Amino acid sequence: MQFHLNGFHPGDPRFDDPQDRVVPPPIKRPLPEAVDVLIVGCGPAGLNLAAQLSQFGDIKVAIVDQKDDRLLVGQADGIACRTMEMFQAYGFADQIRQEAYQVSEAAFWKPDADKPNQIARSGKVQDVADDLSEMPHLIINQARVHDMFLDVMRQGPGKIVPHYQRKLLGLEVDPDGGEYPVTLKFERLVNYSQYSQEIETVKARYVVGCDGARSSVRTAIGKELVGDALNQAWGVMDVLLNTDFPDIRLKSLIHSNNEGNMLIIPREGGYMVRLYIELDKLRENERVARDQMSPDVLVAAANRIMQPYTVDVKEVAWWSVYEIGQRITTAFDDSAEGRPAHVFLAGDACHTHSPKAGQGLNTSVMDTWNLGWKLAHVLTGRAGPGILKTYSAERHEYGQALIDFDREFSRMFSAKPKSAENPDGVDPAEFQRYFQLFGQYTAGVSIQYKPSIMVGEGGHQDLAKGLTVGKRFHSAPVIRHCDARPMQLGHCITANGAYRIFAFAGNVEAMSDDCGVKALCDYLQNDASSPLKKYTPVKSDPDAVIDVRAVFQQHHQSIETGSLHPVLMPPKGRYGLQDHEKVFCVDKRPESSGGGKNIYEMRGIDKEKGCIVIVRPDQYVAEVLPLDDFAGLEGYFKGVLAAV
Amino acid sequence: MQFHLNGFHPGDPRFDDPQDRVVPPPIKRPLPEAVDVLIVGCGPAGLNLAAQLSQFGDIKVAIVDQKDDRLLVGQADGIACRTMEMFQAYGFADQIRQEAYQVSEAAFWKPDADKPNQIARSGKVQDVADDLSEMPHLIINQARVHDMFLDVMRQGPGKIVPHYQRKLLGLEVDPDGGEYPVTLKFERLVNYSQYSQEIETVKARYVVGCDGARSSVRTAIGKELVGDALNQAWGVMDVLLNTDFPDIRLKSLIHSNNEGNMLIIPREGGYMVRLYIELDKLRENERVARDQMSPDVLVAAANRIMQPYTVDVKEVAWWSVYEIGQRITTAFDDSAEGRPAHVFLAGDACHTHSPKAGQGLNTSVMDTWNLGWKLAHVLTGRAGPGILKTYSAERHEYGQALIDFDREFSRMFSAKPKSAENPDGVDPAEFQRYFQLFGQYTAGVSIQYKPSIMVGEGGHQDLAKGLTVGKRFHSAPVIRHCDARPMQLGHCITANGAYRIFAFAGNVEAMSDDCGVKALCDYLQNDASSPLKKYTPVKSDPDAVIDVRAVFQQHHQSIETGSLHPVLMPPKGRYGLQDHEKVFCVDKRPESSGGGKNIYEMRGIDKEKGCIVIVRPDQYVAEVLPLDDFAGLEGYFKGVLAAV
Ligand SMILES: Cc1cc2nc3c(=O)[nH]c(=O)nc-3n(C[C@H](O)[C@H](O)[C@H](O)COP(=O)(O)OP(=O)(O)OC[C@H]3O[C@@H](n4cnc5c(N)ncnc54)[C@H](O)[C@@H]3O)c2cc1C
Ligand SMILES: Cc1cc2nc3c(=O)[nH]c(=O)nc-3n(C[C@H](O)[C@H](O)[C@H](O)COP(=O)(O)OP(=O)(O)OC[C@H]3O[C@@H](n4cnc5c(N)ncnc54)[C@H](O)[C@@H]3O)c2cc1C
Repeated sequence: MQFHLNGFHPGDPRFDDPQDRVVPPPIKRPLPEAVDVLIVGCGPAGLNLAAQLSQFGDIKVAIVDQKDDRLLVGQADGIACRTMEMFQAYGFADQIRQEAYQVSEAAFWKPDADKPNQIARSGKVQDVADDLSEMPHLIINQARVHDMFLDVMRQGPGKIVPHYQRKLLGLEVDPDGGEYPVTLKFERLVNYSQYSQEIETVKARYVVGCDGARSSVRTAIGKELVGDALNQAWGVMDVLLNTDFPDIRLKSLIHSNNEGNMLIIPREGGYMVRLYIELDKLRENERVARDQMSPDVLVAAANRIMQPYTVDVKEVAWWSVYEIGQRITTAFDDSAEGRPAHVFLAGDACHTHSPKAGQGLNTSVMDTWNLGWKLAHVLTGRAGPGILKTYSAERHEYGQALIDFDREFSRMFSAKPKSAENPDGVDPAEFQRYFQLFGQYTAGVSIQYKPSIMVGEGGHQDLAKGLTVGKRFHSAPVIRHCDARPMQLGHCITANGAYRIFAFAGNVEAMSDDCGVKALCDYLQNDASSPLKKYTPVKSDPDAVIDVRAVFQQHHQSIETGSLHPVLMPPKGRYGLQDHEKVFCVDKRPESSGGGKNIYEMRGIDKEKGCIVIVRPDQYVAEVLPLDDFAGLEGYFKGVLAAV
Repeated sequence: MQFHLNGFHPGDPRFDDPQDRVVPPPIKRPLPEAVDVLIVGCGPAGLNLAAQLSQFGDIKVAIVDQKDDRLLVGQADGIACRTMEMFQAYGFADQIRQEAYQVSEAAFWKPDADKPNQIARSGKVQDVADDLSEMPHLIINQARVHDMFLDVMRQGPGKIVPHYQRKLLGLEVDPDGGEYPVTLKFERLVNYSQYSQEIETVKARYVVGCDGARSSVRTAIGKELVGDALNQAWGVMDVLLNTDFPDIRLKSLIHSNNEGNMLIIPREGGYMVRLYIELDKLRENERVARDQMSPDVLVAAANRIMQPYTVDVKEVAWWSVYEIGQRITTAFDDSAEGRPAHVFLAGDACHTHSPKAGQGLNTSVMDTWNLGWKLAHVLTGRAGPGILKTYSAERHEYGQALIDFDREFSRMFSAKPKSAENPDGVDPAEFQRYFQLFGQYTAGVSIQYKPSIMVGEGGHQDLAKGLTVGKRFHSAPVIRHCDARPMQLGHCITANGAYRIFAFAGNVEAMSDDCGVKALCDYLQNDASSPLKKYTPVKSDPDAVIDVRAVFQQHHQSIETGSLHPVLMPPKGRYGLQDHEKVFCVDKRPESSGGGKNIYEMRGIDKEKGCIVIVRPDQYVAEVLPLDDFAGLEGYFKGVLAAV
């Protein structure tokens, strides 16, 4: 898809006329008096939380922002594979993929050995390792991601629409305040950010501060970002340009000898490019004061860094000096000894990163992806509030690890390249190796949550070596039984808040008397202690809380629908319609027909014994169990769900 | 994607609340006094034509329908692979794919040999042969396809919105009528189909009658549908049901012994199913008069046909008795000896088919896909009106062939299955073979337009054996050079009305002195008779009329951007920005990385010599030429474009 050829214009590029891309801001309505969840901030963290909560019609949510309207341009643009997996769960991955630039390779440039004042390519590497994820690594304006979340919010049962022009002034928590322990005060801003002195008060069960690096919620609960004292300053600009630099449509990391470093990120639509220039590394005499910084200064710097190549910038769509440290708060909620959390922090409000690894947006959405369903489970009575403490525990550890990684990456990125004159510099080959090594990290798929009430010990990990307990469920291709459709098994984990039990059958005839999946289904259907019976409200669909799916090793045509266990064809909805989409088979098609990938082999699943894989609503593997470990199943769900 | 679980509701299923799926009908505006193209009918044929013309901002188009609003439910539902290829050109294939049911296999059922009153499965076959198309065969409500066209129309530069509640009363053609030879009269219908007696008159350069099987435009120009006198009557219903029929989520063709035949088409959303019941084949005593036909009668028939299985229908979303013959008009326009065409017919207005092969919608959109860009070329001055006569010639031949095919298919479908008692019946195995054989036909990829000013003689077909002159360009995977993105080459043929020249390089170093692509680019850039120079208006982008793309056999990393010919990096738009997306390479990735498919091998392209493939704006291969056959290039374009 090509667009922005005649200049950058925000909004949906499918509209030819930029005027038609303008979406009117929502009608101003008073804030509700009391809500279940009050979200402060319409950045990616806040919008993702609202999108997740909008899937539950019974939860009352308000989301506010001090801005006048949705974001239109600028800020982050990298979409990691893992984030795309989440977009898939919401149903908008295809649309993002269609619009976005896809990062297939990255190019590395260093000073030319012969002419050190000029740069030369040191190499190109594949950006996303094979089978790291079924999803690509993409680049697109953060604003378009916001647009997708806004659609999901509006379209979901909760029908959530932001309240703009509301600035949080402060909040108070009264742990004994009954149903709504948090009271927040907002001031209305009118006519483009003038303070109206009109104050609104809202009471909330839970507050989530998604209000960015200068979070007022953070201040209100007495938390502080701690870490590097020194901020790194980057000049960043989205431009339309012509150039003789050969890798302009590849992500390019450029180390110059004396002129500093830069990063080129090709952007959506075929013409736009983002340039990141590390300002601290500009030559002393080239540095300019912050208030004298301008696009011209940045373009001049780019031209010096890129010698012998030049850029001819035709339009600056957006630019900024993005100055940020690597900091994190001590915890992501306001809980204390003996006092449960009422206020949570997410995204930049509790951890900030240098933009080089492109983690700001991706980590922020992953925070609320972790929190959203937990809040939903508590608010709908599916789980007790005890599960909420896993949010801070799980995400804080990852936030810290990311900062450690980012620090090392930044050090290498900012260091001078190794040369005769700079023997202590970074070897470009080493940098490139590091870059590849940490591909998993930046793709967001390396996160492994520690054992907790939510994550098992993984004592039976050898039954599914590639579906690591604590890591995200790594999807693989299968054939759906009912309609022979080739698909990714992971794509049945939609953002509906349900746990999944994947029953991978052993090497026996499906649904025969020795079939472990059959025994499991019998247990789930009939046993008094079956989690299905224990945790599914009578009025809910059988798969609303725990969604059982089976995978068989036979050819899909060799299993007859009539033989399938009723648990695998649950009656749903007002008519009790059969859901036929619970059963999958190994893809036995030849490679020439697009097949040839066996999920058991790809994910190290024990072909003899099979296994159970429990997956959390956020797609993380909660536990791997033997197919007949009913006690293990019961034990797991007892910790995370409340009996109905 | 699952939806319709709690009942069918029209509109975009991404909205949880059916009320929010309601799109208000467009504001009523008076018809314009004069237009370039007046389209009568908002069925698939008309909407596709409007969608194509909306890509040209300068063409004035009006599209009218007597209905009150867009279609919401019913009519056709099969989307052939070829139709999906066209959707891809418009940019909405992904969205349709996400929503639709995908036909991967078909099941065949016949009378059980032992218990002839019961049916038994005779087999299952893969529905779409490997590498028939990169697109799947899908099933989705025709109304959703309309919605996509309506989006494209609204979003394109032409910003076309239908005028509903306008009934064509008649039209007159005055060949000497100057600029606007056709005069049409419409009556406004208000308050749901009451005649207002308010008449509007519109003048048009061209009129396209897309007004369905009872076309008034057809009558006005004195054409008649001719063919089978006998209409076939089918009961068709979209239902939500439970059943013990094992193949309910597969397309299933059922021949019963004495109860008639039916066709099961699983539908989008996971729960809905379409049942087609051939009414003429019901047992004599079971037949009911048309006016006594009801969903109950159809369900009862289904239950008799499917014995020993039963269906328990919970909701009827839509039903109809669809009665149609196999007919076609003698020509698809009003041209006569010495008089050019002013009025065209498309879709059901000029040919009708039994629904079994699912060709109604697919052929209708392919009609206007053929016509739209030709009209646009004439109206924008790119081509003379002479090209318009190829529309009727190309599409009439195909329409006739389809009827012949359909007649044979219907005969086999309706015939009794062969058995001891019915030795003259159809052998189920033979039917199955026929079904597979004609997969190409029903997929829409078998169409081969005859040589004409638009389609070359194919004298050099052996240079690209798999890119048949006259057939649609059969896409294959490549790697885009600038960003190493794996993609389908055919997907750069978007619906923008441009011809493509694909230059497939021979086995020499890219852009070296013996490189035929380099020589071709030099010629295209510099030679006075270069079609690029001759037919591209000064103010247009260099690729607006003829879009040149090159494919090389080297690894994409071994070709440096700097070496590429300027013709392959044309300056575009108001800034003269470089377009980097014109160069492709063979996908050399190993199979394990998703590669392993060589476009030269897949499409029989001569690796030594390479070749030129000219592709029409509607994706049909116009000609295959040797790389150095500049005269051939000139000759082709002389026939179809007008020098600027
Ligand atoms: C100017 C800018 C440039 C950036 N550039 C890059 C970049 O180049 N690359 C990169 O990777 N990342 C960049 N980022 C970071 C990236 O956008 C963030 O990491 C990401 O947006 C974090 O998401 P978030 O939801 O946590 O917070 P944010 O996106 O910061 O959203 C916070 C929201 O809260 C609102 N808010 C704040 N205080 C209040 C209040 N008191 N009352 C009401 N609302 C309030 C804000 O208006 C804002 O909309 C940039 C961020 C900014 C602000
Ligand atoms: C009730 C019905 C059921 C069908 N069922 C099936 C099926 O089950 N399977 C299948 O494959 N195909 C079915 N079809 C056929 C399929 O829908 C058509 O082949 C396809 O829609 C043809 O597209 P079209 O654009 O040529 O015409 P249509 O879709 O018929 O569109 C013609 C349009 O022109 C309008 N129109 C007609 N006369 C005038 C006038 N004088 N003034 C203004 N507007 C006018 C009509 O209102 C209509 O919207 C069905 C069609 C109908 C009508």
